[in-house]
Amino acid sequence: MAVATPHMTAGPRNALSDVAGLRVGHASMVGDGALTGVTVVLAPPGGVVAAVDVRGGGPGTRETDALDPRNLVPRVEAIALTGGSAYGLDAVAGVVSWLEDHERGFPVGELPHEVVPVVPAATIFDLGRGGDFRKRPDAALGRAAVEAAAAEEECGPVATGVVGAATGALAGGLKGGLGTASCVLEGGVTVAALVVVNAAGSAIDPVGGLPYGMVAALPGEFPLVPPSHNEHAAALGRFVDADAPQPPLNTTLAVVATDAALTRAQAHKLAGVAHDGMARALRPVHTLYDGDTVFALSTGARLLPAVSSETPYGVNAEAAALSAIHAAAADVVARAIVHGVLAAESVDMATGPAPSYRSLYPGAAARYRRTD
Amino acid sequence: MAVATPHMTAGPRNALSDVAGLRVGHASMVGDGALTGVTVVLAPPGGVVAAVDVRGGGPGTRETDALDPRNLVPRVEAIALTGGSAYGLDAVAGVVSWLEDHERGFPVGELPHEVVPVVPAATIFDLGRGGDFRKRPDAALGRAAVEAAAAEEECGPVATGVVGAATGALAGGLKGGLGTASCVLEGGVTVAALVVVNAAGSAIDPVGGLPYGMVAALPGEFPLVPPSHNEHAAALGRFVDADAPQPPLNTTLAVVATDAALTRAQAHKLAGVAHDGMARALRPVHTLYDGDTVFALSTGARLLPAVSSETPYGVNAEAAALSAIHAAAADVVARAIVHGVLAAESVDMATGPAPSYRSLYPGAAARYRRTD
Repeated sequence: MAVATPHMTAGPRNALSDVAGLRVGHASMVGDGALTGVTVVLAPPGGVVAAVDVRGGGPGTRETDALDPRNLVPRVEAIALTGGSAYGLDAVAGVVSWLEDHERGFPVGELPHEVVPVVPAATIFDLGRGGDFRKRPDAALGRAAVEAAAAEEECGPVATGVVGAATGALAGGLKGGLGTASCVLEGGVTVAALVVVNAAGSAIDPVGGLPYGMVAALPGEFPLVPPSHNEHAAALGRFVDADAPQPPLNTTLAVVATDAALTRAQAHKLAGVAHDGMARALRPVHTLYDGDTVFALSTGARLLPAVSSETPYGVNAEAAALSAIHAAAADVVARAIVHGVLAAESVDMATGPAPSYRSLYPGAAARYRRTD
Repeated sequence: MAVATPHMTAGPRNALSDVAGLRVGHASMVGDGALTGVTVVLAPPGGVVAAVDVRGGGPGTRETDALDPRNLVPRVEAIALTGGSAYGLDAVAGVVSWLEDHERGFPVGELPHEVVPVVPAATIFDLGRGGDFRKRPDAALGRAAVEAAAAEEECGPVATGVVGAATGALAGGLKGGLGTASCVLEGGVTVAALVVVNAAGSAIDPVGGLPYGMVAALPGEFPLVPPSHNEHAAALGRFVDADAPQPPLNTTLAVVATDAALTRAQAHKLAGVAHDGMARALRPVHTLYDGDTVFALSTGARLLPAVSSETPYGVNAEAAALSAIHAAAADVVARAIVHGVLAAESVDMATGPAPSYRSLYPGAAARYRRTD
């Protein structure tokens, strides 16, 4: 326990899809005043255990109360992340209708089609960044995202950067992006995260110019070098400008997932601890201007060590396994944030230029390659 | 908002006592099998607004439900932090009785002595570290701590390191300690923290050997230099030893405070965001083996900018002021954790040696001086 990084490796894709059964689909709306999108995480049929922890001061969410472990619905078929602030939650309708068409959801009758799909969702603020305040994700875009997810191969690649719900994202004066990461613990449990980085705070340490979240990096994961003095000074002038208008609202969203079998209450704890990854990779975070939200999913493929009847209390194997998963969840969130910022490309928004990290730090990031 | 460190300075003491009116008192129980203590934060008569956020998986607390903003008691006279795990909460009785003797508490009758002192408290696990599992803080020790607080001058120094509730503290294989820090925001609001660092996780980055929490440092605050390769390698062998028995339970406790006037709900949000400072300075944190808890206090000496009737929504002056306080709270917690670890001295515990950071990294820490 003394040090958080045990002998971990990333999964084959270093992505959320390393948790077998989870598929990710994106749909974007770009041009003609639009700069937004939707990302859907689709569970295998029958759903997954899910939980949520909302820590930002300005959240926009749907169906999160259903995830309270005290409430009825035990599993969900999908999670939706959207742009478009409160309006963008309308996109979830397209995910719900697709699930209904496929007879997937909480059963409420005798017939297969008698289901209610509960699709927990959260949204980021990106209104007006494409130029038209009224261009937001709608049901058609949501349906396109879930269809894209369903079309993915199992354990396939996950597109990152300026895609899906992160299409219009900003992160502390830089272009934000969608990032993902995974790790495999000793014993074989996989923990992974997908993050839409759209933070009021910064992902970059102004002292030194490297991403904060590198503190959680796996060996060799981020082949960045400290930027030269000149490169850093020039970059600071671009993204740390006290006179530049800051976005009034933001929000970072994450989905963390594991193949370990968690109860809903255990998934709730996992979502909470995963916020520590946001804290390590974004500064400040959980502000009043962010609706920072973490969903936690458990596919249940791997059973945790059982609590022994001989040691019903204390530091048992189950608690040890959970603790390793918790620490890994915080770290994969931090690492996914770094990948999201590094994968993003510059975008000229209606609200002003959004330079990418790689464009401002070409020397520091010269050896970084997108993995998807 | 893009970068979290504005033009901040520490308060005169760089301590919790920089929030005028708050006094800190310690009492320790050392020797004859004991290695534990109590720390009390005493409000000025009439009390302060208070809130709490519990994020650790193994908390030990008292009177925290009374702090729910929906509940009755609007202010508290003191916060108590104790060693001794659940047993150590008995020490709060001594704080309560002292307050009763001084006719301080929630009024429940016509006469001045008819009060009920509500003293929220949380405890760390340090049982057995002095050798005798049964030596824990009691009411007498709690009373000694509150009397010590009452005897302090206003805005006086706060003792740090191996004192009070941190007497038996450990932090990821090192000796833990009590730390404190403060900052003064533009406009004059002070935000300060006091932390009892007793973490299952580590405060020290195994890559490089410097404290994680230095990411939040004020310029020049921690005059550490990167340790030499030899110093770091030798130190790692001492405190990152997979074969060393790790403490089964731990807990980091913090009190954050500001002179800004907060509602109880605003103080609750402050306590939550302050946990981000733990996340930045300790890794992992909020584990099942920690009862990590943050209390937030507001003395109310400085009014926040009012919400304007012309801008009842949106990014108003009040939200901006709160956001600056939130960011500062996370940072003072991280900085206080670093001070706590740096101020601690080595202790030979019954459970094994607990080397201090300074003893393991004499070169890196050569220029660090305790400020109290």
